[in-house]
Amino acid sequence: MISFNQKIKKRAKDIKSYLCIGIDVNAKALGSDNFEDIKAHSKKIIDATRDIALAFKPNFAFFERWGSKGFKWLEETVDYIGSDCIIIADAKRGDIGNTAKHYANAFFKYLNCDAITVNPYMGQEAIEPFCSDKNKGVYVLCRTSNTSASYIQDTIFDKVVSLSESVNQYENIGLVVGATDTEKMKEVRKTNNLPFLIPGIGAQGGSLKDVIEINNNHEESTLINVSRSIIFAGNHDSDSIRNAAQDLCNEMRLHFER
Amino acid sequence: MISFNQKIKKRAKDIKSYLCIGIDVNAKALGSDNFEDIKAHSKKIIDATRDIALAFKPNFAFFERWGSKGFKWLEETVDYIGSDCIIIADAKRGDIGNTAKHYANAFFKYLNCDAITVNPYMGQEAIEPFCSDKNKGVYVLCRTSNTSASYIQDTIFDKVVSLSESVNQYENIGLVVGATDTEKMKEVRKTNNLPFLIPGIGAQGGSLKDVIEINNNHEESTLINVSRSIIFAGNHDSDSIRNAAQDLCNEMRLHFER
Repeated sequence: MISFNQKIKKRAKDIKSYLCIGIDVNAKALGSDNFEDIKAHSKKIIDATRDIALAFKPNFAFFERWGSKGFKWLEETVDYIGSDCIIIADAKRGDIGNTAKHYANAFFKYLNCDAITVNPYMGQEAIEPFCSDKNKGVYVLCRTSNTSASYIQDTIFDKVVSLSESVNQYENIGLVVGATDTEKMKEVRKTNNLPFLIPGIGAQGGSLKDVIEINNNHEESTLINVSRSIIFAGNHDSDSIRNAAQDLCNEMRLHFER
Repeated sequence: MISFNQKIKKRAKDIKSYLCIGIDVNAKALGSDNFEDIKAHSKKIIDATRDIALAFKPNFAFFERWGSKGFKWLEETVDYIGSDCIIIADAKRGDIGNTAKHYANAFFKYLNCDAITVNPYMGQEAIEPFCSDKNKGVYVLCRTSNTSASYIQDTIFDKVVSLSESVNQYENIGLVVGATDTEKMKEVRKTNNLPFLIPGIGAQGGSLKDVIEINNNHEESTLINVSRSIIFAGNHDSDSIRNAAQDLCNEMRLHFER
């Protein structure tokens, strides 16, 4: 069985894509708070992009806000994506011991996701319970893309990197590093060779060119997440979504090939 | 409308209790992995202790691991507890903007919990969206009770305190500070007057006497969480659960009155 990080590299090579599509369908952006409309739109995104997306990243909050029916929808979404595409559970969980084991069970076994995002605030015990299955990946929040990230994270991101490297015995650990502060990304990139999952491109304003330049030696393990500018492209129709995703895919390839 | 922190103080005064009971029913400790048995046991805990518990703290991982039916069970549990007792959603969420707003909606409006635990790693944007309703409380993870907590947290807990104080305009913010390291708790207590939610007593080994000594000037806003040594007391029968909870309640009162 290959490790999660190898699985990412393999699909990246096979389909020549570095694109992760965030499935964050919210009522306001869609212009409808009808649950069925929101469900239909998330299916539309998946159908329009499944062959060019290296990964899909459902953001759990957008599902959980609908309660148990939202959780059911999450289960259906994971089934609908299927096993060809990588599924990253963007759950940002950060808990320990038994609790973390329960989350790992829920996301890896019950839902059959391929990877999860975790929050390192509680230390090693918050990450380790997710790492024991070589085939399942763990992206540790390191330097996130939001405005107020620096306040806490700038003091400790090097510790988070060390911690993440120390639990990477199965080659299944990566880091979440935002595109909105490329100077900080350069700093993080210098200290380690872990794969990055990169939010902050597109609506959040990060530069694709800069991000790829920084990660040029890590081509096949770099996952660049885009949500809003794909999933709400144009008139929200399949063609607009497809074209936005394809354009970004092409642009990423071009930069990586330089 | 009174603030969440006043609500805690009021109930503490009314029933003379500082006890928060963690609803973390896991199959292994119960000796059954039957979903119905686990549900029945959580009801038993609530019935045996609802008049002496200042708060109940359902740990979301233990529910979510059952998928959508677990989320349904969580909804039923919150309904079953009802509105007399305070309900703290132990979800440790740490996300920003829209995502955090979705979580706030899910836990405060959809589920109607009274408070939530949040993870400060992503900074102010990860806390603020939960704070806008005076009546709903937010406990920010500050210094947790687990073994590996110190690695990340010791460097930044003072920043977490400042951040938490800065968003406390509605008197609805508290801190999670573990009982397993009382020296650290003393340090945190000195720097602020926010209410503490304290895990780590009982099975985790923290001393009730020490904890109460440190928080003696914050009697009516201190919430002391106990899970395993109550919910799996004796033969797991109602009487054993009730007695364990009552004994702890009495011991807490005694120490606070000294």
